[in-house]
Amino acid sequence: MKAIVQTDPDTPRSLELQDVNVPELRSGEVLVKVRAAGVNRGDILQTMGAYPPPPGASDIIGLEAAGVIEDAGDTDWETGTKVGCLLAGGGYAEYVAVPQGQLLPLPTGFSLEETAAVVEVGCTVWSNLGIEAGLHEGQRVLIHGGGGGIGTFAIQVAKALGAEVAVTAGSQEKLDRCRDLGADILINYKEQDFVDKLKGSCDVILDIIGAKYLEKNIKCLAKDGKLVIIGMQGGTKAHINLAPMLPKRLTIQGTTLRARDLDDKAEIVASTIKNVWPMLEDGRVKHALHGTYPLADAAQAHAALDSGEVTGTLVLTV
Amino acid sequence: MKAIVQTDPDTPRSLELQDVNVPELRSGEVLVKVRAAGVNRGDILQTMGAYPPPPGASDIIGLEAAGVIEDAGDTDWETGTKVGCLLAGGGYAEYVAVPQGQLLPLPTGFSLEETAAVVEVGCTVWSNLGIEAGLHEGQRVLIHGGGGGIGTFAIQVAKALGAEVAVTAGSQEKLDRCRDLGADILINYKEQDFVDKLKGSCDVILDIIGAKYLEKNIKCLAKDGKLVIIGMQGGTKAHINLAPMLPKRLTIQGTTLRARDLDDKAEIVASTIKNVWPMLEDGRVKHALHGTYPLADAAQAHAALDSGEVTGTLVLTV
Repeated sequence: MKAIVQTDPDTPRSLELQDVNVPELRSGEVLVKVRAAGVNRGDILQTMGAYPPPPGASDIIGLEAAGVIEDAGDTDWETGTKVGCLLAGGGYAEYVAVPQGQLLPLPTGFSLEETAAVVEVGCTVWSNLGIEAGLHEGQRVLIHGGGGGIGTFAIQVAKALGAEVAVTAGSQEKLDRCRDLGADILINYKEQDFVDKLKGSCDVILDIIGAKYLEKNIKCLAKDGKLVIIGMQGGTKAHINLAPMLPKRLTIQGTTLRARDLDDKAEIVASTIKNVWPMLEDGRVKHALHGTYPLADAAQAHAALDSGEVTGTLVLTV
Repeated sequence: MKAIVQTDPDTPRSLELQDVNVPELRSGEVLVKVRAAGVNRGDILQTMGAYPPPPGASDIIGLEAAGVIEDAGDTDWETGTKVGCLLAGGGYAEYVAVPQGQLLPLPTGFSLEETAAVVEVGCTVWSNLGIEAGLHEGQRVLIHGGGGGIGTFAIQVAKALGAEVAVTAGSQEKLDRCRDLGADILINYKEQDFVDKLKGSCDVILDIIGAKYLEKNIKCLAKDGKLVIIGMQGGTKAHINLAPMLPKRLTIQGTTLRARDLDDKAEIVASTIKNVWPMLEDGRVKHALHGTYPLADAAQAHAALDSGEVTGTLVLTV
């Protein structure tokens, strides 16, 4: 089969379409003929050597895809079924082996391309806001990077849950988008310290920054507040003052989706289908397919995502 | 009524028995005639100005007591019932007003003095190991300060839950006690770095040290590990490396019991009665009453606890 291969580990954009073996199925896996593969920041990090696939996963890039079941293996799935796939790797290819617990139906009305664009972000946002943080009506959530792919999705899920949403972003244009998606409190981090506006008021914070925001985030948490860190764009080493953590009973949690075991992922996928798919189907959550590239042009898609000009998900078509 | 009053805020041991007003009942509270009041480290911290009572609580010292209901107020409790009491303050007195959700029956076979010695430690250990950390069979828990009041109780609760227990303590004598209570892995922190022995292996850590152990504790956590910090004997300001927190999905949580709201406390008390009282009644968990002092000798009891020679709870008798 054809798949994207990184020909030089030191050159992130050395992505070429080459012939590789079709993956062999393990028990509980199905073979999916890929029609569309979502492009994620994690893919770019992987080409830079910063986000290696977990043990046992394909070393081909690609964390989500959609396509048609080609071989159901020893599972009860039917050949020919259209599915979305949450992947630990392997999406940038003509075929991918998928554990059955990581298959999702297409949301009603969604194309394969549109589905490939919402699997990873949907599971990531739901596992953090819904499952880990237990966000619910009447709570206030702070979402950093409100203008990004995860941010724009998280704003809408949080609103659908009945929460009040504060966001940070680096431009008025991005903040306008956040407002259009329902965000209640808009903070341009280049002009304003978010602690001034949110001190002691946030029940949940969804953070992609890490070290740089750690002390500020702690100051923003309300009693029983929970900081969920899903990215480290602002580094990993920080000072921390634990003093407020006991009387306010604060929690700091790091999470990733990719390294979880199969049972965890199956639970997250099932809960995402149950809770987020209806939000997509009735329009409470919208997620833009920003554009498509042929699989062979993966390097160009990465360059486009890296440019910061992308406001939805890019998809590679096979 | 008589109660212990600190006559000089700058002198922790200036504790005198004086005449004060009997507390007035608020809705949902009962008046308990105190027969025994447990002595806790939090009481000593309060006399040092370091652990003030939460808003609305009595400014009299004392976090737990046992006695007889003198006035049931507007509740369904019956006058004359013997009860244990979890308190936000007020135990060092002849009478204390107690929210009804914070009353506990005496464990079968327990005296009032013995009950006054297990309420605070029982609720603290259960709320952290049982409720917050969800410790269960097959997991490994690290308990710092294994020889202390909370540590010795936590070892036994953890063993009753089927967990493997590692402890740190500062002397062979304390480690021997921990082993007698069921601890599986014994570490003298003065002679050995606990990270060397436990790196990456602990599902739960119950920590009373705070900043000084933060980085070491993070290194000891296994995937999905949870660090619960309930004390800061090693300071509050630390360096932290967030890098392992995402791939290992670690959680750091600070908790205190005293500052929780009434609903939280009622839930914890109910869960403690359900889960820990049976462990006390059938002997799976033993907790020593180290000694008793008359209420008037509270300062002597504090001095004894501060000496570090106490291996159970001290109780003031009224």
